Amino acid sequence: MRLKFPILALILEIITIILFAVFVVYDDGKGHHDGHHDANTTEEESPLQLYPMFQDVHVMIFIGFGFLMTFLKKYGFSSVGINLVLAAFGLQWGLLMQGLWHMDNGKIKMNIFKMINADFSTATVLISFGAVLGKTSPVQLLIMTILEITIFSINEHLVANILKANDVGASMIIHAFGAYFGLAVARVLYRPGLRNGHENDGSVYHSDLFAMIGTVFLWMFWPSFNSAIAEPGVTQLTAVINTYVSLAACVLSAYAISSLVEHKGKLDMVHIQNATLAGGVAVGTCADMNIQPFGAMLIGLVAGIISTLGFKLLSPILASNLGIQDTCGVHNLHGMPGILGGLAGIVAVALGKANQGSADMQAAALASSLGFALIGGAITGE
Amino acid sequence: MRLKFPILALILEIITIILFAVFVVYDDGKGHHDGHHDANTTEEESPLQLYPMFQDVHVMIFIGFGFLMTFLKKYGFSSVGINLVLAAFGLQWGLLMQGLWHMDNGKIKMNIFKMINADFSTATVLISFGAVLGKTSPVQLLIMTILEITIFSINEHLVANILKANDVGASMIIHAFGAYFGLAVARVLYRPGLRNGHENDGSVYHSDLFAMIGTVFLWMFWPSFNSAIAEPGVTQLTAVINTYVSLAACVLSAYAISSLVEHKGKLDMVHIQNATLAGGVAVGTCADMNIQPFGAMLIGLVAGIISTLGFKLLSPILASNLGIQDTCGVHNLHGMPGILGGLAGIVAVALGKANQGSADMQAAALASSLGFALIGGAITGE
Amino acid sequence: MRLKFPILALILEIITIILFAVFVVYDDGKGHHDGHHDANTTEEESPLQLYPMFQDVHVMIFIGFGFLMTFLKKYGFSSVGINLVLAAFGLQWGLLMQGLWHMDNGKIKMNIFKMINADFSTATVLISFGAVLGKTSPVQLLIMTILEITIFSINEHLVANILKANDVGASMIIHAFGAYFGLAVARVLYRPGLRNGHENDGSVYHSDLFAMIGTVFLWMFWPSFNSAIAEPGVTQLTAVINTYVSLAACVLSAYAISSLVEHKGKLDMVHIQNATLAGGVAVGTCADMNIQPFGAMLIGLVAGIISTLGFKLLSPILASNLGIQDTCGVHNLHGMPGILGGLAGIVAVALGKANQGSADMQAAALASSLGFALIGGAITGE
Repeated sequence: MRLKFPILALILEIITIILFAVFVVYDDGKGHHDGHHDANTTEEESPLQLYPMFQDVHVMIFIGFGFLMTFLKKYGFSSVGINLVLAAFGLQWGLLMQGLWHMDNGKIKMNIFKMINADFSTATVLISFGAVLGKTSPVQLLIMTILEITIFSINEHLVANILKANDVGASMIIHAFGAYFGLAVARVLYRPGLRNGHENDGSVYHSDLFAMIGTVFLWMFWPSFNSAIAEPGVTQLTAVINTYVSLAACVLSAYAISSLVEHKGKLDMVHIQNATLAGGVAVGTCADMNIQPFGAMLIGLVAGIISTLGFKLLSPILASNLGIQDTCGVHNLHGMPGILGGLAGIVAVALGKANQGSADMQAAALASSLGFALIGGAITGE
Repeated sequence: MRLKFPILALILEIITIILFAVFVVYDDGKGHHDGHHDANTTEEESPLQLYPMFQDVHVMIFIGFGFLMTFLKKYGFSSVGINLVLAAFGLQWGLLMQGLWHMDNGKIKMNIFKMINADFSTATVLISFGAVLGKTSPVQLLIMTILEITIFSINEHLVANILKANDVGASMIIHAFGAYFGLAVARVLYRPGLRNGHENDGSVYHSDLFAMIGTVFLWMFWPSFNSAIAEPGVTQLTAVINTYVSLAACVLSAYAISSLVEHKGKLDMVHIQNATLAGGVAVGTCADMNIQPFGAMLIGLVAGIISTLGFKLLSPILASNLGIQDTCGVHNLHGMPGILGGLAGIVAVALGKANQGSADMQAAALASSLGFALIGGAITGE
Repeated sequence: MRLKFPILALILEIITIILFAVFVVYDDGKGHHDGHHDANTTEEESPLQLYPMFQDVHVMIFIGFGFLMTFLKKYGFSSVGINLVLAAFGLQWGLLMQGLWHMDNGKIKMNIFKMINADFSTATVLISFGAVLGKTSPVQLLIMTILEITIFSINEHLVANILKANDVGASMIIHAFGAYFGLAVARVLYRPGLRNGHENDGSVYHSDLFAMIGTVFLWMFWPSFNSAIAEPGVTQLTAVINTYVSLAACVLSAYAISSLVEHKGKLDMVHIQNATLAGGVAVGTCADMNIQPFGAMLIGLVAGIISTLGFKLLSPILASNLGIQDTCGVHNLHGMPGILGGLAGIVAVALGKANQGSADMQAAALASSLGFALIGGAITGE
């Protein structure tokens, strides 16, 4: 039993290294570029142009997601520690799975653009991890990582390359996908005896401050997440600006609603740690569209409201009536705001705010992301 | 009563969104640029050229200022949490207030340069917040944010565009302004019963470590703060270098003086958390001038000394004799070093170290910043 | 006695300022460039091109090394605080010592490239600090800083400019050098009474989470450390990619071995905090070579294994049999992986993976680094 985790980890790593030896080479900038979203024309100018944005995304994955989950006083260390090993393995697996769709003479040509996408693919796993934290072993989580990233890569290819839908900040293909995948797994793992949560589910003063490290780094660098793979130039600037103002507006509405629904107008730390970020999730699909700053702020405002209300009203119902114990509330931070982002994308494309795509394809992309997530999560849970 | 904060926050956000809808558009790079300090010629090359520096400043505002104030064991969470909501609202308000002076066909054209300035304008509020932490409600702080940023924008316009004074790192218009504004508010809010502080004013072991997260991020990224809006090229490099060496020299003098004045040569954590940063404040006005690295180091050396002595000698006098309870010691970190920076700027300009401006205009800028701060703070406090 | 530290610190800082006044000027981009590794051709394009990578390295030095050592519950504050003062002084001293070898008309022309190297030189001291933490006073550590950086600069000049060996990520000249320098000092300072460690040597729950902040920032930004001074373009991209995948592979092997050797398959936090980084150390020498991603992953895999086994098996032997109490286990994180990096460099050069150098010169560089470290450390310890 105690050998299961080390043996699995070592075998997976050795298989991965063999696959890298066969398939992965450096991108020397000479081959035909067939990148995700056709956006890596910048690569030809300087291979490190996207590096600062990559590092911002890297911080979100490893510090942001890692520390956001430390608010649980008993799971602080394991959330950061397990986050690190899942993301470290996930980015290798994601590089292979996503690279398979974009091979050049039978090789995956590795560059900063592909490293950003590899980091992105791990985000789905880390979101799902938030729903099953405390209910799963490291062995189960490593297996979930393989399955979820594989399914993610199929859905991502479908959405981006077949449907040609817009989702630059990945409201649908990462946030909604990751959340519903995790919730489906949590539902399958549900055991009645655990119904009312247990004493490990609380936070203490210092664990809340550690979680704020995660929150604030996610909040600050979210403009990089939503713009990293946008087309360079004004489009990328648009994605940065929309995300920046959406998050700012979201903070105000999250605080306002939190104070409104809590006893004596106090602020709830869980709302502050999570709902302030919903604006980044929800503006993802539209981030690079010409929705104007006030449009992005409206999306952020609504996202902060529904996310806070979700924590207050919906999470208890999910746990007691549907048997879904969403440990970190990913449904409120990633699930509903992700769907909101998908819906906003349909409206924005219908109003002609995007350069490509159609409202039908956007709707199909949202449906596809939710379908793959629920079915994939249910199978993985079994 | 419990409705006051949520209603105020929502109404302010909705008004802000309406103002954005009327006035704010993306900067498509085509219009006439009339930027702050005439420095955004870079924008034409790549709209994201300044983005890494923007993110450094962003980290200083949200992690740096937020965690620096966590050293108070009872205010840790509220310092990070309130910091986030004030800064999130402040940057929106600052974008409007500063943008009003630089409109293009009746529109504020949003770009990274303006986002950096919006972040800067929130810094004044966060500095003042350090003086009134524990004495004010969130409602009062939101109102202070509106008033202070409005007054800041007027003074900033006067200093930069009318007086044409140098203040690239904002020793005068942000640090001295923010500190004396906050101290004026604190003086007005003074109640004799609180004279001797109370038990919440202490720190504990872990709260000191959290505060060091803030300190170190501020210390590391201060070169970006002082150079972000400098003229691109060698001038910007000069601002980076001057700040880097000034801060390094300041650490040595702050540690030395702390050890000298403390019992048995021990280091005082409050000095380490704050006085080590005084070199960044004090070199701000001269940062982009040709003062040579050793000149910057001398400024840092002196700043570390006066800041540490301020905590040891001056703060108790301010509290007991003048009724000014400076919760976080902003007078020692931002007030005196800010004035030192203003004075150093007068001397440096007189010695011909700057490309523009005159010693008279520098002196006028310092006087203006202090005057606006004290009068504005006193009015706001009432 | 209590005057010793403040007087030493102030005198050192004043001497340093005088030396800066005599020798250091801004790099205006006009002079003859004779930079470290001849790689600063980028400087001519934009003086701030390397600035984002510099800031990543800066974060590693001040947050990474500073917080990594907070795991000891009694030394948390002093590790961050002493880290700050040693690095702040060390970077000034390093700028002078390294600059002496690259003068231009009798002046050290300061630029971002030199600032990165100055930060690098402090890394040697911070690694050694990890071996002697708890056994040395601030006065002793300041003296060690001067001596170690001076010796480092001599060895670095020998390795890079005389032997013309490859060591872009400094496995040999920083990591192995710093570790064995510190261990030599620790051996000299050994007192039998301290043989079995003491109660301060433990960690508590929250101190482990603080240490993870250091670990994760080091882990994320290590690609910048190993590529910052690489030749711009594809070579720099190669260094980024090799480090990224080496670290990812290292996490898996470190976790696997930790779980294998610990009671009941639990993970040991010290292994997670340290051994996960060994892949960054070990791939340093080869980082910019054409070893392909899978080659880098193999190096990382091996590094994670030997580092974890070092903590479990070797550290107790060093402490009990050789009188070397390696407080933070730098032998396992920097020492052995640094030697592994040097050996990998010899093999890779012999296999023709590098553009310059020979296997003999690589071996000489490794021997030189170890020799200077052990002799220098022993002398410093006396």
